[in-house]
Amino acid sequence: MSRPLILVSNDDGITSKGILTLVNVMKQLGEVIVVAPDSPQSGMGHAITVGNTLRLEENFIFEGVKAWECSGTPADCVKMARHFVLKGQRQPDVVVSGVNHGSNTSISVLYSGTMSAAIEGAIEGTPAIGFSLSDFSHKADFSHTEEYIRKITQQVLEKGLPKGVALNVNFPPKQNEPLKGIRICRQANAKWVEDFDQRHDPNGRRYFWMVGNFVNFDKGEDNDEWAIANNYVSVVPCQFDLTAHAAIPVLNEEWEIL
Amino acid sequence: MSRPLILVSNDDGITSKGILTLVNVMKQLGEVIVVAPDSPQSGMGHAITVGNTLRLEENFIFEGVKAWECSGTPADCVKMARHFVLKGQRQPDVVVSGVNHGSNTSISVLYSGTMSAAIEGAIEGTPAIGFSLSDFSHKADFSHTEEYIRKITQQVLEKGLPKGVALNVNFPPKQNEPLKGIRICRQANAKWVEDFDQRHDPNGRRYFWMVGNFVNFDKGEDNDEWAIANNYVSVVPCQFDLTAHAAIPVLNEEWEIL
Repeated sequence: MSRPLILVSNDDGITSKGILTLVNVMKQLGEVIVVAPDSPQSGMGHAITVGNTLRLEENFIFEGVKAWECSGTPADCVKMARHFVLKGQRQPDVVVSGVNHGSNTSISVLYSGTMSAAIEGAIEGTPAIGFSLSDFSHKADFSHTEEYIRKITQQVLEKGLPKGVALNVNFPPKQNEPLKGIRICRQANAKWVEDFDQRHDPNGRRYFWMVGNFVNFDKGEDNDEWAIANNYVSVVPCQFDLTAHAAIPVLNEEWEIL
Repeated sequence: MSRPLILVSNDDGITSKGILTLVNVMKQLGEVIVVAPDSPQSGMGHAITVGNTLRLEENFIFEGVKAWECSGTPADCVKMARHFVLKGQRQPDVVVSGVNHGSNTSISVLYSGTMSAAIEGAIEGTPAIGFSLSDFSHKADFSHTEEYIRKITQQVLEKGLPKGVALNVNFPPKQNEPLKGIRICRQANAKWVEDFDQRHDPNGRRYFWMVGNFVNFDKGEDNDEWAIANNYVSVVPCQFDLTAHAAIPVLNEEWEIL
């Protein structure tokens, strides 16, 4: 059997330390191609570029790996990889995204460009994984994540994933003790509570910085926040069918306008 | 009882015809405030503005309605409405978004800025509805939607919505026959297949336009694509818990690395 073809993307941009970590691990597992944003795209959610143009240029920063930088969002990158760079060619066996500088646990999955690249992969029917480290630093230490990234990706390559599912994998920051292992989790019930820091520009016009405070309402031990806080790797299977199926019979029964 | 407080946003921008339609219907139902993007934000998905500043200015285009235009995404608008404009004051009884120029059925819900504003409302625990019309024209005819927007919003104000749920409401384009009624639906199994139209700028550098072709794999009659194609209003209850709960026991059983 030929070596698997692995598509790598991210949302921190092609020059980030996290994507270099991911590329280096993937080179051990298969043939790697990279299509990643040419600039940071954090918080882009599942944005795509409509009503505007896209650029795509070959990039030579990864040794022995074909790579392209794209002016678009993470979701755009995966679309361009499949439908332009690899058009008419062999398609990826797995899509991996990250490693994100900063966690994408609980509600953050909605705002995450890293996970949108993975979910694009799942929409196309390709097993896909987003990896994030709970450390926002540009110089974050990813060394403890490498062994787990390799094991999880190998497992997905061997066993596939249920249809319509992408994995959201989060790592605790590097600590003195080694990681305790992997937990399959649900998304924690938590949210961001924002505040807006009002300032004035040199012309006297006001502007704002959004400041988010994370609030965790979840008392369970089966969720991603608990796993990270207890030095486990969290793996949440995520779906792109947003239908709240349980609410359909409720509305059908309650509504008087049907 | 005092009149309900209704927060209106959208993703086509504060000057679009769709938001004017929505504001005019909402004025019949309660006290309205508008916080909407100052420019079109289509395809922004659940993007938020991190690592950059935001502007917010009062706007006077809606008669008798307090309104603000924001430089950010639809999700930013709902956050600023709650945590800056209405900070310390009465919070909205319902968040409505749209009416979008273009449908947000099936997989498009992921890319939709209109729905991200509604989902932000649901995250905050406020009943929320995104409205979209399957007609991309700037001059689209929204007249057939008004009666249904009013009825659906009234129903939500009276009965609330299940916890963690926002509604994705889509209207067929205006036709000769009147709409046949409302269907509670699931998200159709469909996707966009992209192509990239390659061109060259005046300096000879290549650039791309993304071109999407919608492909519907769904043979069912209980989904939003079927409803729209058959001149019904589709209502899909959507959730922001992306966990594929059914996949958790599968991974726990299959994986050898746990």
